[in-house]
Amino acid sequence: MTTQQREISLARGLKGVYLDTTESSDVQGDIGKLIYRGYNIHDLAEQSTFEETIYLLLYGKLPTRAQLNQFGATLHQSGKVPGPVIDIIRSVQKSHPMDVLRTAVSALSAFDPETEDNSPEATLRKGIRLTAQTPTIVCAHDRIRHGLKPVEPNPSLNFAANFLYMLKGEAPSEADTKLMDTDFILHADHGSNASAFGARVAASTLADLHCAVVAGVATLKGPWHGGAAEKVMEMALEIGEESKALSYIEDRLKKGDRVMGFGHRVYTAEDPRARHLRDRAKALGDRMGQPKWWRILSAVEERMRPYARRGICVNVDFWSGSIYYLLGIPEDLFISIFAIGRVPGWAVQVLEQQKNNILIRPLLKYVGPMDVPYVPIDQRS
Amino acid sequence: MTTQQREISLARGLKGVYLDTTESSDVQGDIGKLIYRGYNIHDLAEQSTFEETIYLLLYGKLPTRAQLNQFGATLHQSGKVPGPVIDIIRSVQKSHPMDVLRTAVSALSAFDPETEDNSPEATLRKGIRLTAQTPTIVCAHDRIRHGLKPVEPNPSLNFAANFLYMLKGEAPSEADTKLMDTDFILHADHGSNASAFGARVAASTLADLHCAVVAGVATLKGPWHGGAAEKVMEMALEIGEESKALSYIEDRLKKGDRVMGFGHRVYTAEDPRARHLRDRAKALGDRMGQPKWWRILSAVEERMRPYARRGICVNVDFWSGSIYYLLGIPEDLFISIFAIGRVPGWAVQVLEQQKNNILIRPLLKYVGPMDVPYVPIDQRS
Repeated sequence: MTTQQREISLARGLKGVYLDTTESSDVQGDIGKLIYRGYNIHDLAEQSTFEETIYLLLYGKLPTRAQLNQFGATLHQSGKVPGPVIDIIRSVQKSHPMDVLRTAVSALSAFDPETEDNSPEATLRKGIRLTAQTPTIVCAHDRIRHGLKPVEPNPSLNFAANFLYMLKGEAPSEADTKLMDTDFILHADHGSNASAFGARVAASTLADLHCAVVAGVATLKGPWHGGAAEKVMEMALEIGEESKALSYIEDRLKKGDRVMGFGHRVYTAEDPRARHLRDRAKALGDRMGQPKWWRILSAVEERMRPYARRGICVNVDFWSGSIYYLLGIPEDLFISIFAIGRVPGWAVQVLEQQKNNILIRPLLKYVGPMDVPYVPIDQRS
Repeated sequence: MTTQQREISLARGLKGVYLDTTESSDVQGDIGKLIYRGYNIHDLAEQSTFEETIYLLLYGKLPTRAQLNQFGATLHQSGKVPGPVIDIIRSVQKSHPMDVLRTAVSALSAFDPETEDNSPEATLRKGIRLTAQTPTIVCAHDRIRHGLKPVEPNPSLNFAANFLYMLKGEAPSEADTKLMDTDFILHADHGSNASAFGARVAASTLADLHCAVVAGVATLKGPWHGGAAEKVMEMALEIGEESKALSYIEDRLKKGDRVMGFGHRVYTAEDPRARHLRDRAKALGDRMGQPKWWRILSAVEERMRPYARRGICVNVDFWSGSIYYLLGIPEDLFISIFAIGRVPGWAVQVLEQQKNNILIRPLLKYVGPMDVPYVPIDQRS
């Protein structure tokens, strides 16, 4: 019996398909709960730091102070990007920051001493290096394309502060640092999202971590994944003022257009990451004397509330864009910030895939023509 | 009810899971039949050319002579790689050719006029450009790392001959050209193999074709996917002479080691691509006065024959490595040759994914700790 004759049911989008087990993050979409290694995302967002969270994801437990100090030092030492990769960034500087990040991460494989070592120890070390190098790449590119010199990492700053420092050339306020730190924590891992899944697919052929992370970056670029925060902020800018929010959304819904920042494949309850950014976006807007963006987005959220009953709730991307915007970060960098936060999640999932590996290779049902006779070229019409 | 409480069955490796429909290729693993757009791979391997096959995959039908001439000219015009990308290749020349290819394809996005245009027309044009640029990158890198100048494409040669010409700096014989051409035809598409699937995952977020092809290259690098041909030739070299083949394999089987070039997730019958390469590898070995590799591999194949009853049959990678070796191609380029042949398959599957898109995002079953209380850092042990 050939594939053609069998009844075949399709798992389009792999909706509801459980690929494998994980010990890293648990997305409980029905009750809006997110867990990293057993810890509730709310506890981590409120009490942890990104360094701690990376450590937690990679090593499976929260560090002691000595372990954290050591780990922070390792992260700092690993953040440097070799000169030839900076030159490569320079030569592709005109393209989208995610294309530049993808090319630079790919090029790093030429300078990493352990690129093709697939042992868990080397993969972990490479995961730490790539986590540390990603913000350096993103910031160097943004400086270069604006005609500025890249800023060297500052070892006296934490990860989030150092990111803002390398981006802007001056040390950020404590409040801005905390905001960025929380944002990175919220983005660090999220089950089998498309980019982590793409990284797992690459790792499943026994391709190395650089391959997997490049696949992750490539997959994250799409507007249905990393690109959503940018689209939400574009919408807020288009709306322009609070009083126009309602009619804008009515208009969009009437046309059947998607309202960005709502709905999620897994969450049918509110995305638990959203609330942390909602409150912080409000405080930031007030602090900057620009409360209008939060008000516009709140009006949009209010208008969309009836859809929550159908499982279309606000997601993490809805608030993050306005925060980046108020922090003065260019819109086309929003996906790159997501990527910086997500590298640890990609690394830990690659480690999990490697530990109990099986080639990830689904099937496709062929629905094209069959048994077409080959006709020599001069007899074709 | 949370995910923890439900009975969840895992689809590890997505074995047997049908992702979606396709009109491009049909891998009928149970009867060892492979079809591109309705045409049997045997007809294409024996009567078609790689240019024709690319056209068939991308446009859904075989070209007339006028269409083929036009298409061949377009391919030739598209093969040039911009100078800055050649410089990038130079700066990462020491890394694995697949890493270089991944970085260079990624960098091409900075110079393609339609990188972020996701329309089917632009995606098709980019697919043709990437198909044409891939051999230029592979050959330029190999020349550069050997201290030689890259060879400009020669528009009077067909795709396969031009590849060998750019690699070696001299026009190949007709027999070598035909061999390379057939090899490319056999590698052009193959259902939802891991790299094409990785490309689909990227495309499913609405990321552009460069993202998808970079994900494809990244995924192909693994020894369980594109890396197998290299491993088979390593084995043949290790065996060294026909008389030692049997004991080598006995030894390997006794140790429970995998014999490379046998078995395939989808084929339980013989891979229909293998026979074309088997016959051609023999003829090539005889022609080159080096019949020994074919004899060694034949002895291995013979020893493995009992496993065919269990569905572990010879696959396409088993013979291709010896052909590349006899053509004087460095072993670490074998995966790149696979990539050159596969770009059209990645492009056509991305076009299919875009046409009826749905985000590809499976789930993971969380099996880690739950409800762990957050302990302040100084109280941890």
